[in-house]
Amino acid sequence: MKEFNVKRIDVDTGKYEIILNIEDARDLSVYREDRVKVVGGRKTITAKVNVTDTLIEPGTIGAFRKTHDALDVAVDDKIQLIPTSKPDSVEYIRKKMDGKELSKSELYDIIRDLVSGSISDIEMTAYVVACYTRGMTLDETENLTKAIIDTGDVIEFDKGPVFDFHSIGGLPGNKVTLLVVPIVAASGLMIPKTCSRAISSACGTADILETIANVTLSIEDIKRISEEVGGVIAWGGAVNMAPADDLIIQVEYPLAIDPYPQVISSIMAKKKAGGAEYLLIDLPMGPGTKVETEEIARRYVNDFIEIGRRIGIKVECAITFGGQPVGAAIGPALEVKEALEALEGKKVRTSLIEKSAALAGLILEAGGVATTGQGKEAAKEIIRSGKALEKLLEIIKHQGGNHEITSETVPLGKYTHTVVSDKEGYVDAINNKSIVKVVRAAGAPKSKGAGLWLYEKKGHKVAKGQKLYTLYADSERKLKEALRVSRELRPLTIEGMLLKVFPSFHQI
Amino acid sequence: MKEFNVKRIDVDTGKYEIILNIEDARDLSVYREDRVKVVGGRKTITAKVNVTDTLIEPGTIGAFRKTHDALDVAVDDKIQLIPTSKPDSVEYIRKKMDGKELSKSELYDIIRDLVSGSISDIEMTAYVVACYTRGMTLDETENLTKAIIDTGDVIEFDKGPVFDFHSIGGLPGNKVTLLVVPIVAASGLMIPKTCSRAISSACGTADILETIANVTLSIEDIKRISEEVGGVIAWGGAVNMAPADDLIIQVEYPLAIDPYPQVISSIMAKKKAGGAEYLLIDLPMGPGTKVETEEIARRYVNDFIEIGRRIGIKVECAITFGGQPVGAAIGPALEVKEALEALEGKKVRTSLIEKSAALAGLILEAGGVATTGQGKEAAKEIIRSGKALEKLLEIIKHQGGNHEITSETVPLGKYTHTVVSDKEGYVDAINNKSIVKVVRAAGAPKSKGAGLWLYEKKGHKVAKGQKLYTLYADSERKLKEALRVSRELRPLTIEGMLLKVFPSFHQI
Repeated sequence: MKEFNVKRIDVDTGKYEIILNIEDARDLSVYREDRVKVVGGRKTITAKVNVTDTLIEPGTIGAFRKTHDALDVAVDDKIQLIPTSKPDSVEYIRKKMDGKELSKSELYDIIRDLVSGSISDIEMTAYVVACYTRGMTLDETENLTKAIIDTGDVIEFDKGPVFDFHSIGGLPGNKVTLLVVPIVAASGLMIPKTCSRAISSACGTADILETIANVTLSIEDIKRISEEVGGVIAWGGAVNMAPADDLIIQVEYPLAIDPYPQVISSIMAKKKAGGAEYLLIDLPMGPGTKVETEEIARRYVNDFIEIGRRIGIKVECAITFGGQPVGAAIGPALEVKEALEALEGKKVRTSLIEKSAALAGLILEAGGVATTGQGKEAAKEIIRSGKALEKLLEIIKHQGGNHEITSETVPLGKYTHTVVSDKEGYVDAINNKSIVKVVRAAGAPKSKGAGLWLYEKKGHKVAKGQKLYTLYADSERKLKEALRVSRELRPLTIEGMLLKVFPSFHQI
Repeated sequence: MKEFNVKRIDVDTGKYEIILNIEDARDLSVYREDRVKVVGGRKTITAKVNVTDTLIEPGTIGAFRKTHDALDVAVDDKIQLIPTSKPDSVEYIRKKMDGKELSKSELYDIIRDLVSGSISDIEMTAYVVACYTRGMTLDETENLTKAIIDTGDVIEFDKGPVFDFHSIGGLPGNKVTLLVVPIVAASGLMIPKTCSRAISSACGTADILETIANVTLSIEDIKRISEEVGGVIAWGGAVNMAPADDLIIQVEYPLAIDPYPQVISSIMAKKKAGGAEYLLIDLPMGPGTKVETEEIARRYVNDFIEIGRRIGIKVECAITFGGQPVGAAIGPALEVKEALEALEGKKVRTSLIEKSAALAGLILEAGGVATTGQGKEAAKEIIRSGKALEKLLEIIKHQGGNHEITSETVPLGKYTHTVVSDKEGYVDAINNKSIVKVVRAAGAPKSKGAGLWLYEKKGHKVAKGQKLYTLYADSERKLKEALRVSRELRPLTIEGMLLKVFPSFHQI
């Protein structure tokens, strides 16, 4: 079989992709967009074919960054190419598009092909959209979850028990993890928290903490820091735990969709791979969040608990108030600032402390370090004593961050604009979805300084000209864009004192 | 605003894509997978961003082949980059995913953004899959069709009237266009036929004729050849007529799906842009084709006629027998061979002549060159007289092919394998879908020599060891793959004489 040299093409396409000279492509009878198995490197992968007349000479393949890294070949190493047929899993994706239930082996095939690179972006998108429009049965969700776990690494802790926590996304400003993890770790329990980046929300916990610490940790780091410090906040996408989930997210992100069965299996697979034995799930309920109604909340609760039972995690769910953002800050750097303020004992919105303490308290009770009903108070005491702040800074230090950081020194976006009320009245509504769109327009989650700081919350009385919120961005263009979106979507609505005018004096 | 040099990256990614140095990407606050408007070339396009540390130096952009061709810049020309936000049309795609009806302006936005490159493959796939799972109303189909027409070029003929013909895909071996077009042109009517490549079928007419002639013609070529010769068979994807349709097909092809509303609007938009005033549509009905039942056929008939009425084309539909392949040949080169045999007066399967003459006859009647009810006989006479063969060779010559080609000299796949019956009996069924899969496994439509030649059709009596069909391929690997698929899917089933054994002597 013909052997090829490998030339690194230093472009990060995020996928397994190679470039072939047209002559070699003809010899192999492969065409653009076809897939070939690349054999002979450290890892055997399936890569998409691009074709060139001139850029790569015959006998050599061009390997983009991710492909080259996976192959890990030296200059003189040779590789071989084996053209592959379309995998059977594309048939199963069509089956799901047609609304049919997938078997365990079909779901495993899809996930295995996804992880090996045999499924293209187009095929993967079709799978995600089909799950979105067709849904999945609980059996499918279970099998999907198991397939995602089994195609990746898992952490095995020497200590235990392992506690974990997850907030369902969609609620802007929900930075409670930055309080819950240090409270629990300071209590002596172990909470190795892997977290995610935003898919459809303004920013995930990984996006937030990344502002001041490294969240790209290895499995060894996560294990060591957790066992030493009691807690860690690591980006789940950086390790090879549940790698299928990260690939699915790459497709969900640009569409800003997050299909229900995918939410369940994504969270549960990451948690199981991360070694969790007990898991508390925060379900913020309110308009514009993932959990808009009590009915949806109940479905989540049932399915999380049931899938947990099937894969061996004890799950507890807390439905929380999601009618408006938690606290004042939305956006990576701003949320770090507000979390630090809370732990430093500064005056912050009560909702942030109350919610974080209530959630952490449930874990303290489950772990037996607080008696039933006393968890919340115990959690507040850990904040008041300064131990939670100390623990967070210790975690930040172990994750390569500056442990002398304070709420005053977090770097915020340089470009700001403050919006004031154009009339006297009350804050009638704060629209979660609009806030998310404004903050994303400002550049979040990738742009760390981007965000929005709310001065007033629902029901507050405001005077004409009073500050409502400040927009933050890292570039002037993004600030303008956020301002444009905020003018269009109006994240806050102010109702004047004069609510209705009867027609008696204003006859049409 | 900063200006950039442009460096050609000679790789055909099929999309608008550029490579930026990481420093420039930071300056512009853009990230991998973001989109930027590229201004200053011949055409303003929106391109996807890739990022490199080393391959491209700051101040230069790397432009892949399609991008570089569209910009058409000289060595010293400078371009500018304007970061763009996610287009609103992504919201409309989500709306369709949620099963809601799209307005005229929303559909126009989607199609415009698609053509300008502002929508990514992932977003486009989501749109196509949403159309597949959710369907479209007739108003949506009309607006989609109009949007596809209005975002591309149209042909305006100096002569008229313009007749056109289209066969709905899915029926293997349906090479009737190769007979219908020369018959109609030989009768003195004008039939400028644009045709497509296969999406979910074994091969489209463009894939077939490409074996022996150039189907990549310009609008000027199509106009000139049609007006001079009376007929042309050109690939619709090569011209900028209904370009959105070709982009949609790029996503449909790997999934082998072809959503119903997309079929209607794709065909009608191409036909309108091609100047058609009268259009005959062939709807082969049978298991494994696009038109499986009478109910589906009626829906197609109604919708084609109604959309035709709304955009100004007189449509006639013919429901034809699609229970098994037309003729003996399936696959690009083999179908050319069989079509030539038919026109040369050689003995071929009656079904091919009967169907082609019946369809061509309807056009002859509509064009007034045959009286009502006499069209089919007139068409047969044009074949018998040799005028149809002469006209096809004239068309081939005008399209840069060898007009001395005969059914004996068409180049077929070099690797063959003949499958024989393992028992005595009757051909009980020929499975269209299995045949398509076998022929695609053999390499069709891209590999021209790939195909399958049927020796026996439904109801024929066969002896043990009698030849059933021969597989053709251009490489040994593809032949093996086709053989493997044919063993698994059994495109022909033979029922023995002994149909059932009663349990009287075979008690379990």
